[in-house]
Amino acid sequence: MTEMGKIMGQIIMHSIGIIRSPYKESKDIPIQGTFKREAEAWLELKDKYVPGLKDLDKFSHAILIYYFHKSEREEIEGMPFLEQNKHGIFAIRSPHRPNHIGFSIVKIKSIKGNRMYFTEVDILDRTPLLDIKPYVGYFDSRDNVISGWLEKHFKDGNIPNKTVI
Amino acid sequence: MTEMGKIMGQIIMHSIGIIRSPYKESKDIPIQGTFKREAEAWLELKDKYVPGLKDLDKFSHAILIYYFHKSEREEIEGMPFLEQNKHGIFAIRSPHRPNHIGFSIVKIKSIKGNRMYFTEVDILDRTPLLDIKPYVGYFDSRDNVISGWLEKHFKDGNIPNKTVI
Repeated sequence: MTEMGKIMGQIIMHSIGIIRSPYKESKDIPIQGTFKREAEAWLELKDKYVPGLKDLDKFSHAILIYYFHKSEREEIEGMPFLEQNKHGIFAIRSPHRPNHIGFSIVKIKSIKGNRMYFTEVDILDRTPLLDIKPYVGYFDSRDNVISGWLEKHFKDGNIPNKTVI
Repeated sequence: MTEMGKIMGQIIMHSIGIIRSPYKESKDIPIQGTFKREAEAWLELKDKYVPGLKDLDKFSHAILIYYFHKSEREEIEGMPFLEQNKHGIFAIRSPHRPNHIGFSIVKIKSIKGNRMYFTEVDILDRTPLLDIKPYVGYFDSRDNVISGWLEKHFKDGNIPNKTVI
């Protein structure tokens, strides 16, 4: 953090790389990547971070944390896909949120040089990448989950069609 | 983002609140909160964000994204708990990582005013909070997960003892 960042109470971050995906506009993106498994994408890391990928290829899934660079507003409540009602911004996955932090779980396909290829993508092309973490089944996959307002849309094995997030 | 942030290629974030937990020092924290379920914690949001919690109480779990404020170094490879070998920083969950972004899944207990009470905590007291997202079983809980170097430590139902993360 720079000296000025500290003084102003800000937290200063930087892109560690970029995400490349088949989705050029928000309207093309599926609700979540897991529902359109065939789409392929990759991330390109800046050179200095490439050694950080060591041993990630032994994991099946990764968590990507990124910056919703196309969002130009911050909402406290929002209307999600599939709904006519507003919910609190912390009960939906909208990009128009405080700090504009995005989060996706993706399936690792391969790692070559500065690139990690993956599927199960729901991220816009040229999104700035902030972090990669290994997805750990023992911590990150939970049982007995109740998913609030989303339950009614997914009940009886239903998978909603693509819509605007 | 401020004008200066754009010019310098920086991404500027701010804390939306603070996390309060029983863990005052890193050495007190369990490997992951899910292995010490009884510990209780809460987060306190800044007033302007409180309406953002609407309907989050209908979810069983939340994703917290926060800032590892005690880390003063950035590593590209690191030695995780339980290991004598170095792994790439993106294959471990160490706080000493580019951008110092932390990620935890917690179990929601209740929401009252500007506070969300939760359990399954692995976060240091007074950690700055950056975002809250609903944990959605349909997207976030995955099957057929392979967890790389962690598999050997958890095999046959083993749960490792608390160690330094």
